[in-house]
Amino acid sequence: MPTPERRYVITFGCPDRTGIVAGIASFLADHGGWIVEAAYHTDRDTGWFFTRQEVLADSLPFGVDELRARFADVAGSLGDGSNMRITDTGSKRRVVILVSKEGHCLYDLLGRVASGELDIDVPAVIANHPDLGDITRAHGIPFHHVDFKSGDKATAFARVRELVDAADPHAVVLARFMQILPPELCVAWSGRALNIHHSFLPSFVGARPYHQAHQRGVKLIGATCHYVTADLDAGPIIEQDVIRVDHGDAIPDLVRKGRDIEKVVLSRGLRWHLEDRVLVHGNRTVVF
Amino acid sequence: MPTPERRYVITFGCPDRTGIVAGIASFLADHGGWIVEAAYHTDRDTGWFFTRQEVLADSLPFGVDELRARFADVAGSLGDGSNMRITDTGSKRRVVILVSKEGHCLYDLLGRVASGELDIDVPAVIANHPDLGDITRAHGIPFHHVDFKSGDKATAFARVRELVDAADPHAVVLARFMQILPPELCVAWSGRALNIHHSFLPSFVGARPYHQAHQRGVKLIGATCHYVTADLDAGPIIEQDVIRVDHGDAIPDLVRKGRDIEKVVLSRGLRWHLEDRVLVHGNRTVVF
Amino acid sequence: MPTPERRYVITFGCPDRTGIVAGIASFLADHGGWIVEAAYHTDRDTGWFFTRQEVLADSLPFGVDELRARFADVAGSLGDGSNMRITDTGSKRRVVILVSKEGHCLYDLLGRVASGELDIDVPAVIANHPDLGDITRAHGIPFHHVDFKSGDKATAFARVRELVDAADPHAVVLARFMQILPPELCVAWSGRALNIHHSFLPSFVGARPYHQAHQRGVKLIGATCHYVTADLDAGPIIEQDVIRVDHGDAIPDLVRKGRDIEKVVLSRGLRWHLEDRVLVHGNRTVVF
Amino acid sequence: MPTPERRYVITFGCPDRTGIVAGIASFLADHGGWIVEAAYHTDRDTGWFFTRQEVLADSLPFGVDELRARFADVAGSLGDGSNMRITDTGSKRRVVILVSKEGHCLYDLLGRVASGELDIDVPAVIANHPDLGDITRAHGIPFHHVDFKSGDKATAFARVRELVDAADPHAVVLARFMQILPPELCVAWSGRALNIHHSFLPSFVGARPYHQAHQRGVKLIGATCHYVTADLDAGPIIEQDVIRVDHGDAIPDLVRKGRDIEKVVLSRGLRWHLEDRVLVHGNRTVVF
Repeated sequence: MPTPERRYVITFGCPDRTGIVAGIASFLADHGGWIVEAAYHTDRDTGWFFTRQEVLADSLPFGVDELRARFADVAGSLGDGSNMRITDTGSKRRVVILVSKEGHCLYDLLGRVASGELDIDVPAVIANHPDLGDITRAHGIPFHHVDFKSGDKATAFARVRELVDAADPHAVVLARFMQILPPELCVAWSGRALNIHHSFLPSFVGARPYHQAHQRGVKLIGATCHYVTADLDAGPIIEQDVIRVDHGDAIPDLVRKGRDIEKVVLSRGLRWHLEDRVLVHGNRTVVF
Repeated sequence: MPTPERRYVITFGCPDRTGIVAGIASFLADHGGWIVEAAYHTDRDTGWFFTRQEVLADSLPFGVDELRARFADVAGSLGDGSNMRITDTGSKRRVVILVSKEGHCLYDLLGRVASGELDIDVPAVIANHPDLGDITRAHGIPFHHVDFKSGDKATAFARVRELVDAADPHAVVLARFMQILPPELCVAWSGRALNIHHSFLPSFVGARPYHQAHQRGVKLIGATCHYVTADLDAGPIIEQDVIRVDHGDAIPDLVRKGRDIEKVVLSRGLRWHLEDRVLVHGNRTVVF
Repeated sequence: MPTPERRYVITFGCPDRTGIVAGIASFLADHGGWIVEAAYHTDRDTGWFFTRQEVLADSLPFGVDELRARFADVAGSLGDGSNMRITDTGSKRRVVILVSKEGHCLYDLLGRVASGELDIDVPAVIANHPDLGDITRAHGIPFHHVDFKSGDKATAFARVRELVDAADPHAVVLARFMQILPPELCVAWSGRALNIHHSFLPSFVGARPYHQAHQRGVKLIGATCHYVTADLDAGPIIEQDVIRVDHGDAIPDLVRKGRDIEKVVLSRGLRWHLEDRVLVHGNRTVVF
Repeated sequence: MPTPERRYVITFGCPDRTGIVAGIASFLADHGGWIVEAAYHTDRDTGWFFTRQEVLADSLPFGVDELRARFADVAGSLGDGSNMRITDTGSKRRVVILVSKEGHCLYDLLGRVASGELDIDVPAVIANHPDLGDITRAHGIPFHHVDFKSGDKATAFARVRELVDAADPHAVVLARFMQILPPELCVAWSGRALNIHHSFLPSFVGARPYHQAHQRGVKLIGATCHYVTADLDAGPIIEQDVIRVDHGDAIPDLVRKGRDIEKVVLSRGLRWHLEDRVLVHGNRTVVF
């Protein structure tokens, strides 16, 4: 078996019918494509079919551009080529991180980048407070403080957008960025802006979810990684997790315990997004 | 150390001040009371103090009635005797169970009773459908089918109330009873009516929570055991738990997986209630 | 989309190479086979490929016997037809349950059968104690008490084998059966005898695992569902889960809390086994 | 209620008898001591009693030294003053961290220190590899590389001991330090050397636990924070947790997933140790 190094990742969705798997698999087999990971899902409610496949790059006699062109024909013949996407693991992903003052998610992500666990480029960290500049720069990453206080928000967000778009990132991560993205940015970054919300959505939407959780007296608190849409905290959910709390936990305890869940949920969601494991279908996700 | 058999369980709450623990502990020590379990909690938001203590019955020179009378004096001197309660583990608890058609919670509870894990009397199972009669009677427990369809609901609930109140139960368990209790029953059974709701509250209140969960695309589903109040699914939460689901789980899968969480959350909540471990404070609970 | 009713479940394993998925999918597509669920796995250490597919029975122009014959040819051409298996969800599975005195797993399984969650036949419950006879018979299931005390074990096990083999079951479930199967029965029932061990294996093999866990001072206890082999508690693991305990939990508390994990782990493992989701590979399992 | 700022933390253990709680509580109440947190435990097997109490420093008319002296009398009168300990939250705890090449636990701890979540001094990070020097120094913490390769281990450990003891730390954290402490250091640092082992102990003691876990085919992997003793990976367990894995996870996946559990288990264990929440009793711990 060849070393599973560089791979092409194919994701595809279309209305289900007989022969889709055969069509894709035969196309790949005909060109010697070695599938190292394959997942399929049929949504029983909508009758849609989804797949994600990893093919060894070296096993195919052509490059990613020709694979895209040829696979587009296959996808078209299976129904609909518009929900097809092929990426190359050989090109590094770029991730821009937006933060505020709370650094736990940023620290966590930077640690994963430094250790090589997340093999990505971080061309910029953008913040509405200067506090996290030192740790960012210690990792050799440019830090941009955008002032949201002295001027109007529209100007600030225009600056954020300029900085983000300059990096042309595969993901924009709101790592406890405490500002609500304006609708035009939700649209511009649709499908690649990821937020970590510090509650088990749909409970406790909006501000101060740990305070809301404490007041309701829940016995578990959670965190949710989701795609940002114009509806606040209502976008497609990528990952969630919870941690147990009890009556002895005051709000600062919820905040502290919740951080450990936020970090891990965000990093899982980001990893899956960057590995093209997340397919959005309506307001739900398929996570392969 | 004496065998930890029959115990008196003291629960008490009052505004916090210096000397409460000393007052209670000294009273017990002065009479030779052997404390086998003790828990304390101070709610930092409201400044209230709560405690639960288990004392070996044989270690005291008097019975539960005199203990109540004497402890009332102690509690009064510490501030407020009105939130005091003393129960005797020597007298068996009575639990009435209300069900509909779905039997998983009932089966689970009956199994725990049969094995002695739940050492309680179940004087009646009451249902708005006849389906679960056979299994109930196989356990030697009277089963009452109350017709909610042919007549009006008020009459049906009057009959339910009659049956429940005849048993004078320590707990009324709504084990997937698919009827909403009328406000007067919520009041009459306040603090002893327990419901299992098949969602991680406050998400997905009301009908068909698994359908709601599926539509929202959550990655975990849950169950909540709470005291019934006139506000639907909004009473004090006793226990919650969750289980992971993914895109491959259709609604019947959520229903099936959720059952395992419902059963265990309900049985934990009921056990804690019957052991006087649950103290209600506003709309929150302290679970010792 | 046709109603996903009766299905043929295909499982297959062989050394990995290019074109296996295409070969299987094309064979099915050529006959109009509608795949409703498909999973693939390549074991990177051994280079083996595994798959499980569910095909709608009505979508194929032939029955299960001809499917088996034709698929054997396909499998043979892909390398090795010996690890192929096709079952028909239209024929009910038979499960024999072996118990001792502890009834929680039996109660749980009977409840799932009664509610239709587990759509199986239970032709016999066999026990080395008479205690669980009443509940078994209340479910209309024959109960066989085999005496292990007065005679020798070999005779007793011969009787157990006779009863089990008369039912020709798809699964023999050791639901807290406290006797160690003799090697010849491990061989005879290889791949269909499932045990629930009350620890998180490989910790605490053998007798009294909760006592061992308590002595070691672990902070979580667990349960393991595994295939029975001649090596005690060392067979391929199907499913495991854990529950948190603390210093306040004495051994009876571990026993009580552990039961809830045992039940759910056993029922999950059994469901997956009966749905042909579990493929054994060496001493490990692939669970699709 | 006074602000819960500076506190004295009292921990105490002795053979159980009537009147211990009363004795302690009355002593504190007599001097106006305001108890903000109190926990009690009686070990049913050994008949030992344990308690941990937090008292507001300002509520007492004397300082920590006199509290120690006076409480020693109380403890002595209750049986045995030798298992008593009183610490002052007003003095910062010192923690020395030992690492090797793997940085995830170190990154995590440094992030918690930088954000103030862990309010401690880290006077030194000591490593047998130079790799983690930069990130340590970026946090303003001295980094010491001790060479274990060129010379003998005894010399290297003597240097480690010298560096550790110079800091007189409250905790020595082996944060994936891949060297086995020699017995004399286990003794010298008894009760304050914490290790994170990357398995759910007692499973997979020693080297390469993820490889062992993969080979055994477990469905959950775990991590254990325990006190270091001369018996490898056999010291009293402080905290454990697990994460689910499946057949698709190769060893590098186990390593990656396991890291997230290691980090959180170590940081919880360290926090509890530093807050004097962990009382060792034989080879088990009481965690208040």
